Amino acid sequence: MKAIRLTIVCLLFCASLPAQVQWTEVQPGIWKAVAGTPEKISLLKAAGAKPAVAGLQQLPAAKFPLSKGDISVRVADGKVYLRFPLEREEQLFGLGLNFQTINQRGRVSTLHMDHYGGKDDGRTHAPVPFYVSSRGYGVLIDAARYITVYAGTAVRVDTKNPPELIDRNDKSKKWSSMPYSDAVEILVPASGAEIYIFGGPTAMNAVQRYNLFNGGGYLPPKWGLGFTQRVPTLYSQTDIIREADEFEKHQFPLDFIGVEPGWHSMAYPCTFEWDGQRFPNPKGFIDSLMARGVRANLWLNPYVSPKSSLYPKVKPLSGSHTVWNGLVTDFTLPQARQLFKEHFLKNHISLGVSGYKMDENDGYDKWLWPDVATFPSGTAAEQMRQIYGVMMQKMTDEWYREQNRRTYGLVRASNAGASNFPYVIYNDYYSHPDFITALINSSFIGVLWTPEVRASKSAEEWVRRMQSVCFSPMAMLNAWADGTKPWSFPEVESAVQDVAMLRMRLLPYIYSVFAQYHFEGKPPFRSMNLTDGFAYTAQESGGKLDATHNPYEAKTRSELKDQYMMGDDILVAPVFAGQKTRKVYLPAGKWYDFYTGAFAGENTAIDVTPSLERIPLYVRDGALIPMIPARRQAPKPGDVLPLEVRHYGTAPGSFTLYDDDGVSFDFEKGAYSQVKLEVKKDGGKLKGSVGKAQAGKPFGYDGKNVTWTFMTK
Amino acid sequence: MKAIRLTIVCLLFCASLPAQVQWTEVQPGIWKAVAGTPEKISLLKAAGAKPAVAGLQQLPAAKFPLSKGDISVRVADGKVYLRFPLEREEQLFGLGLNFQTINQRGRVSTLHMDHYGGKDDGRTHAPVPFYVSSRGYGVLIDAARYITVYAGTAVRVDTKNPPELIDRNDKSKKWSSMPYSDAVEILVPASGAEIYIFGGPTAMNAVQRYNLFNGGGYLPPKWGLGFTQRVPTLYSQTDIIREADEFEKHQFPLDFIGVEPGWHSMAYPCTFEWDGQRFPNPKGFIDSLMARGVRANLWLNPYVSPKSSLYPKVKPLSGSHTVWNGLVTDFTLPQARQLFKEHFLKNHISLGVSGYKMDENDGYDKWLWPDVATFPSGTAAEQMRQIYGVMMQKMTDEWYREQNRRTYGLVRASNAGASNFPYVIYNDYYSHPDFITALINSSFIGVLWTPEVRASKSAEEWVRRMQSVCFSPMAMLNAWADGTKPWSFPEVESAVQDVAMLRMRLLPYIYSVFAQYHFEGKPPFRSMNLTDGFAYTAQESGGKLDATHNPYEAKTRSELKDQYMMGDDILVAPVFAGQKTRKVYLPAGKWYDFYTGAFAGENTAIDVTPSLERIPLYVRDGALIPMIPARRQAPKPGDVLPLEVRHYGTAPGSFTLYDDDGVSFDFEKGAYSQVKLEVKKDGGKLKGSVGKAQAGKPFGYDGKNVTWTFMTK
Repeated sequence: MKAIRLTIVCLLFCASLPAQVQWTEVQPGIWKAVAGTPEKISLLKAAGAKPAVAGLQQLPAAKFPLSKGDISVRVADGKVYLRFPLEREEQLFGLGLNFQTINQRGRVSTLHMDHYGGKDDGRTHAPVPFYVSSRGYGVLIDAARYITVYAGTAVRVDTKNPPELIDRNDKSKKWSSMPYSDAVEILVPASGAEIYIFGGPTAMNAVQRYNLFNGGGYLPPKWGLGFTQRVPTLYSQTDIIREADEFEKHQFPLDFIGVEPGWHSMAYPCTFEWDGQRFPNPKGFIDSLMARGVRANLWLNPYVSPKSSLYPKVKPLSGSHTVWNGLVTDFTLPQARQLFKEHFLKNHISLGVSGYKMDENDGYDKWLWPDVATFPSGTAAEQMRQIYGVMMQKMTDEWYREQNRRTYGLVRASNAGASNFPYVIYNDYYSHPDFITALINSSFIGVLWTPEVRASKSAEEWVRRMQSVCFSPMAMLNAWADGTKPWSFPEVESAVQDVAMLRMRLLPYIYSVFAQYHFEGKPPFRSMNLTDGFAYTAQESGGKLDATHNPYEAKTRSELKDQYMMGDDILVAPVFAGQKTRKVYLPAGKWYDFYTGAFAGENTAIDVTPSLERIPLYVRDGALIPMIPARRQAPKPGDVLPLEVRHYGTAPGSFTLYDDDGVSFDFEKGAYSQVKLEVKKDGGKLKGSVGKAQAGKPFGYDGKNVTWTFMTK
Repeated sequence: MKAIRLTIVCLLFCASLPAQVQWTEVQPGIWKAVAGTPEKISLLKAAGAKPAVAGLQQLPAAKFPLSKGDISVRVADGKVYLRFPLEREEQLFGLGLNFQTINQRGRVSTLHMDHYGGKDDGRTHAPVPFYVSSRGYGVLIDAARYITVYAGTAVRVDTKNPPELIDRNDKSKKWSSMPYSDAVEILVPASGAEIYIFGGPTAMNAVQRYNLFNGGGYLPPKWGLGFTQRVPTLYSQTDIIREADEFEKHQFPLDFIGVEPGWHSMAYPCTFEWDGQRFPNPKGFIDSLMARGVRANLWLNPYVSPKSSLYPKVKPLSGSHTVWNGLVTDFTLPQARQLFKEHFLKNHISLGVSGYKMDENDGYDKWLWPDVATFPSGTAAEQMRQIYGVMMQKMTDEWYREQNRRTYGLVRASNAGASNFPYVIYNDYYSHPDFITALINSSFIGVLWTPEVRASKSAEEWVRRMQSVCFSPMAMLNAWADGTKPWSFPEVESAVQDVAMLRMRLLPYIYSVFAQYHFEGKPPFRSMNLTDGFAYTAQESGGKLDATHNPYEAKTRSELKDQYMMGDDILVAPVFAGQKTRKVYLPAGKWYDFYTGAFAGENTAIDVTPSLERIPLYVRDGALIPMIPARRQAPKPGDVLPLEVRHYGTAPGSFTLYDDDGVSFDFEKGAYSQVKLEVKKDGGKLKGSVGKAQAGKPFGYDGKNVTWTFMTK
């Protein structure tokens, strides 16, 4: 009875006592603490990734990056309150897939799965509760709830570092509506949470640890890195075959085609069954495409139509509410996943369907199940919202893994722990500049993002959008509603073809960059803030007082939101319609023009006036860029291709060229090659050499047919 | 021991059982139910209003407006889940002070005290969890938490009224991204909540019950309904006296002046103490103004500066976090309120200060105390956020009531239960059209709103803004940052003066309208949707599919967001800069032009092309509009003024002219007059008569000096 009494007392009082947390190093340089009583469902539990231990062990040693005594954890009223210290010049990155801001210090975000709504407030397609500090560490809160993060906005009365007291009436002083704050404070509306701290020493190392902890980045199949076209929604199988032929006629790259809602016998909600009229012979359709070297990716949203044969089976395993009249399957239940698996294997995957575009698992609140919905597993609607996209990624990824086939597709909703899933995020927001900012931000939080192209108001916009999508994780034209083709603006057809072909030629580089994501955890497309030698600090421009537009003298912060790195060596600086010149910030170390090899600058900002035909690209001194001849489709298993290796600048350098069969998971069992390309100074002259591929391992390049191009004269 | 065991079992299981709620009629036509265990702090408890029983008793009888069996209440995981039925054509109004939409059906709002951020999503200055139905009832959720309302968006699998199943692939059918929903669902993140249902039979009756339940609307002092100018922030007492003299020179109305932050010895955070340099003689300053018939209203925000003598006293009674370096006093503590009272009485109110503008008690999240803050009373930061403005209103109102002086001021944050507080809401958003929509929406939720004027880009915008602010609860020019004057655009000075004088002339009407708010609960400025004879239904215009801007074929809804009623009889149709003509919807019953008396229309939409000098105003058939001669300041106690009573149209009619001393609360003890003005047909001719004021009651008009103007020939 004593135990019961103690329980009762504890139920009444324990909840409000500050919790004692213990930090345990769970992987090299990764520490975990438990606050309160974590829930059964969490982000990482939903993703279920296993740490990539080998990669983690290769990272430099890291010490616990914060003063433990400055971290405060409190559990009260069924919520977890966290406080982490911040130093004065520290910048913070991450906290969801943001579209307009990079540095999150001074912002409040409530991380809530949703369509992005035009404001960086936490409502986004990947509301990952993870931040990376410029001081070289990361913090993850693992709870599938709407977590609010005050990233250096809140000031305690008892702070050790109070902000300067300024009288706003004294116009000789610069008053700020945001006084200095020395902490990140976090409210987790859950009984408990698991907290992870990722050590550095650099911000990139913290990101690498985060990605590797989640299994390392996904290595797409080679065809996934080729070009993809999504066709109009009601296209029939005949229309689609014709579309593939059109691509061939135009000599435009095409590796996979996206089949939009019309393939379902009913869509919105979906049957996940072929429409007999538009697709009388699904197997024949897939085979015809494959005969052209083209794969099919199927669009879906997860809501089960009453017209689907799945409906009666799934109904008892679904939530209380419908979405667009469809059932919301409770994917936390193994029986529900099994029903989907059988249906999808039988109807699509066994026919050769290469993957999915998983739409509408993100928002809006007014479309999706409400937070009052209930689910048979007892999972809260809020938790379900935060993890639904991740559960779909995990489930479909498993089906393909069981087939030993890699897949690569699209998803609207992701979250923490999803780095090793084969999906790229997209949305309808369609601001070209903000799409690039999202691409930059994706690198902090272990997700991939595509700035997809749909329509354009002008040929200029068209070619500029095409150029940036070709320097992203998925080179996609999404013509589901507009029916646009890459050659829709004839005046720029050749410029568009050029950049698509450039991407194809760069595949050896890009594939190696993704291998880096997988084995080392380095994001393939990444922020300058994760780049060595980059020391750009966000600038504050003083706000001008104005009664109607800026009554609080708010400062505006200028950040670097429009350039990024593709791998370690290529700096990409997209141009937007209307821009004639743009500024490019080049980090420390010499940088060279990709096209000409000319010296561009070093630790400086340059103004460039690129022609319409070219997206500005810069290469690091001593970098080697392996390329293949232009081709319409990614190399297939067994292909052996000649290589052109470009060297930039004057320094010697090397590059680890990765290769494998490009389609299976055999690389996870060691069936891959890493061949060293190297340029050394030999009697004052630069000279290139290619290492040997290990016998019996797949290597799709002819080491004897390598052209060395020294770009910088 | 059995009891303990039962408790334990209950702690484990009871939480998820559907709660049984009992509806009790707490006032005529008002029912209350308790779900779960309500918290100590709630919106209505914070406001502490007492029902205006006499007014409630005069309303028509009402039956419980919903089928009790269709209301579902569930308490689980420390949250309350509510579901209320909706009929097919029902429209919903309220749910916070919205700026862009009127009908809330089909929207999701998380009601969260904040600056309005440009989107109707629940974040606003008055996030009142109250909705009114076009079917004639209202629902209030009394909990000081961030409540999420799904207003006819969510669809249950087991609904009795399922939406039509439409295949989006079938282009012959009109698919909607928002299928029909038959319920309002609400998530209250609290252990319990009190729920109120307000009967009709009309929507206006439901609003009246809501306002009367909260004590009835506040009756401002007469001077509060005159013109007010807020002066530049660093104006000294000399500057301000000069400003008052300028108003006299320009023969422009002026009843009170708003003194902005510069009066504090330090502001942002505030000392609440006069600056010795700019205000060397506060008492002399107030007296000088009063000698000119002008009162002073003092700006403040609630954050206590370390430089204030209040600081050390208030510190132990304040929250864990600062705002702009200032303490956030825990106003739920009586000791804290007492300290403020002493300080404010001594420093301002005893000198004759007429009231306050209470700024910055609403948002943003990044400026105010975070939700992780703690307060000495144990009140949660979230609760504090929802009620802070209301507590400030209540506290200051009480100080003036104790002096038997009415006050009238400004506040940025309000909530449920605040109808009987002397404050008008304002913000910095400054969209003229959206300001009018806010004015309309204020009428559903028991708050007042002013579309204040600051600056303008053109003379046209200036006069249009001035015209609408003169038909609002507070006719204010806020020149705190710009230093604008009513005559800043000389080309429209006389038009601006005309409309300000028109407001002064209409004071007998406007004051009676506010008396109606107080005694009958009818909002003084109100939506057409609360008006008899108005049968406008929101129109849906079919969305055109467009891949980048409208990929979900969303409909856009057109609503009546730009016209409203001032009292029962005057329809106001503001014009915005750039508009040459506008549509005006006239309800059933004949309507007449205010200026000419000409017939305008009946149950129709008319196009009007108003001159720059006039804001379109229409008067109901048979209406009587009492007016006084143009004057610069509102009548004072003891004034006896001649009356002009205008009659419009051809029908007989009457008007209850209300009057009292205009400054004290004696009217609450019966010291007021209600005199009937009447127009009857007498041998085919219309003839006016004035009833007698009761002897010994204040009545500021000369019943023997009444001019009758029959406007319609």
